[in-house]
Amino acid sequence: MSLIVQKFGGSSVANADRVRNVASIVTDTYKAGNDVVVVVSAQGDTTDDLIAKAKELNDKASKREMDMLMSAGEQISIALLAMTIEKMGFPVVSMLGWQAGFITNSVYSSARIKTMKTDRVSSALDKHQIVVVAGFQGINKYDDITTLGRGGSDTSAVALAAALHADRCQIFTDVEGVYTADPRKVNGALKLKEITYDEMLELATLGAQVLNNRSVEMAKKYNVELEVLSSMKRVPGTIVKEKVKMEEMLIRGVTKDTNCARISLVGIDDVPGVAFKLFNQLAKKNINVDIILQSIGREGSKDITFTVSKDNADEAVELIKQMPYFSNCEISCNTDVAKVSVVGAGMESHPGAAALMFEALYDAGINIKMISTSEIKISVLIALEDADKAVKAVHDRFFNTKNL
Amino acid sequence: MSLIVQKFGGSSVANADRVRNVASIVTDTYKAGNDVVVVVSAQGDTTDDLIAKAKELNDKASKREMDMLMSAGEQISIALLAMTIEKMGFPVVSMLGWQAGFITNSVYSSARIKTMKTDRVSSALDKHQIVVVAGFQGINKYDDITTLGRGGSDTSAVALAAALHADRCQIFTDVEGVYTADPRKVNGALKLKEITYDEMLELATLGAQVLNNRSVEMAKKYNVELEVLSSMKRVPGTIVKEKVKMEEMLIRGVTKDTNCARISLVGIDDVPGVAFKLFNQLAKKNINVDIILQSIGREGSKDITFTVSKDNADEAVELIKQMPYFSNCEISCNTDVAKVSVVGAGMESHPGAAALMFEALYDAGINIKMISTSEIKISVLIALEDADKAVKAVHDRFFNTKNL
Repeated sequence: MSLIVQKFGGSSVANADRVRNVASIVTDTYKAGNDVVVVVSAQGDTTDDLIAKAKELNDKASKREMDMLMSAGEQISIALLAMTIEKMGFPVVSMLGWQAGFITNSVYSSARIKTMKTDRVSSALDKHQIVVVAGFQGINKYDDITTLGRGGSDTSAVALAAALHADRCQIFTDVEGVYTADPRKVNGALKLKEITYDEMLELATLGAQVLNNRSVEMAKKYNVELEVLSSMKRVPGTIVKEKVKMEEMLIRGVTKDTNCARISLVGIDDVPGVAFKLFNQLAKKNINVDIILQSIGREGSKDITFTVSKDNADEAVELIKQMPYFSNCEISCNTDVAKVSVVGAGMESHPGAAALMFEALYDAGINIKMISTSEIKISVLIALEDADKAVKAVHDRFFNTKNL
Repeated sequence: MSLIVQKFGGSSVANADRVRNVASIVTDTYKAGNDVVVVVSAQGDTTDDLIAKAKELNDKASKREMDMLMSAGEQISIALLAMTIEKMGFPVVSMLGWQAGFITNSVYSSARIKTMKTDRVSSALDKHQIVVVAGFQGINKYDDITTLGRGGSDTSAVALAAALHADRCQIFTDVEGVYTADPRKVNGALKLKEITYDEMLELATLGAQVLNNRSVEMAKKYNVELEVLSSMKRVPGTIVKEKVKMEEMLIRGVTKDTNCARISLVGIDDVPGVAFKLFNQLAKKNINVDIILQSIGREGSKDITFTVSKDNADEAVELIKQMPYFSNCEISCNTDVAKVSVVGAGMESHPGAAALMFEALYDAGINIKMISTSEIKISVLIALEDADKAVKAVHDRFFNTKNL
């Protein structure tokens, strides 16, 4: 007998038929002899309705009241799912975030879990009840409702799985697993059987929308075995864990990230510490910098180019303009760029990976603007219009066995 | 400076405009220098939506899960109202039933309040915050959400007012106060300035849909001064309290109750204890009996006639048929009856009230089937088709000053 945590997102419980489908997955898991804890998000339309209602009355409502409002969404979906499981004749109990023991800090709308107090969930499991838990929400030290922010229900599921020492945490989505590239765009994209946490993190960061990063980081930290799988099609998904068999695969996937902007500072006075001050200032404003290129410019000056997410681009440029160090230099920002990356722990022991990627791009006539590498990732910045072509070219090169 | 508890029902917060209207009543009260606690129900349409969603999935859902579901409704309305008050620039905080300290027993869907732990509400008031509290809901000893059942938000408001020693508890409704008869049906129905708890209880029991009985009982017990008033029209309402000036009014109102059935047992063997056994058996099944008439029948037998609510009529008849005492008698049930009553503490010292009522009915050609009196009430059972005519005739007689 295993303890399994299953998480279903808003679209998986969007209407009565979908709720019944989730109930049948849950009860099948239970009937197979497992203890089951289910984490659900708010129904898709409920979330939209609540946001619309709030905006009509106050488009700058406090985050505390927004959390109070939004958390009603999961309350509705857990009750509906629990009722459906009741109707099928199984013992079940629903729990709100605070009832299931999600103690968070007080950053309303993007709270972090501080402690899990799972006594109540455990004792329900001892009574062989299926436990249906509201994802996305918790409670802070003031007894106020908080929400965990984007992708919060994934985090809820992993945190519960970690606290309960669950055997597996299944994240049900509308895709069948993690693919080597976006299967809607790349013919021959392959579903991975297994992937490591680090690979998954790189893929998630780079724009594969399957799993929320915070939840993968937490799964890695507490060694929770994740499975990403479809709520519509009953087939095995992709397992995310610490170590996986490498099989013959060099890389795990090719991704693109179009939420990029490239900022260039040309002709910076070459005094020590300039780069430090620049990136320190950006970090203070929570602007994440990705690829960085520094080069010697003309006449003792230097140039710095780096990428940020598109959302942060304007703020970053404003910030730089206000810094006296950069008053003499030319500042430009380009948002017509995309980042294409290959990810895979296999590259560590295979120095030819970068060359293979660059060759594929060269053959496709794509110009590389910037390069960044880590032990398990190679990223290149290219023109936005080339992004899909680049993904296809690189994917073909790596997953066409004659190249391996 | 006073502490005022204000309660608004589902129709008062049904849409954005109504929510803004409530916010302006609340903030006007606050601006006048009062501490304000607001109790709100779920938005009308939310309640209906949630019930429809539940029925689609399980029409016999457990009451625990129904409470989990339904209580999301007030959670939404308190957040929306709090946001609206925020937008108007006033300090405000919303609280769920459990946050505001409603500790109930564990009878899901019709829980009773056991204790009020209002520390949190009090400390918010100390900080001069307007406190917006979810009505209708509480928490039991298992940390489960419970709801108070029909009219629960009125009860919530009175319980808070009692626990906080509020100066007044204002119940906002869609009528302007308590009237001497239903103003939609009786021309010349008068709005009362004041009424006693006991009179209000009689009126509520008899079908005046203004205030929930439980809340009036609680207000009487804790001596909470109630005011029933309109959320749409800013005029004084009706005050409900322990003692009121009698003015010249003999009675407070005329009501009809059409939810009646008359059950007759004709030809019961005249053995001792038969009546006791009959009514004891009905009481055990929670069937309330109202007017009772017992008379000597033919040849040593007797007849008993009594009224119950229409909903209980079939069950009562079934029960009686199963009792051996009544195997020989003739059992009949008539649902084409209505009860018309006059209520008023003034009748205690005015023995002519009953005569005035009977005379009015006689003059209108209405036949009285049964009569019941208490210190502050006279009820008659008449044919259902005569009910409206009877109310009008009796009201005219009492409130036409030339008769007083």
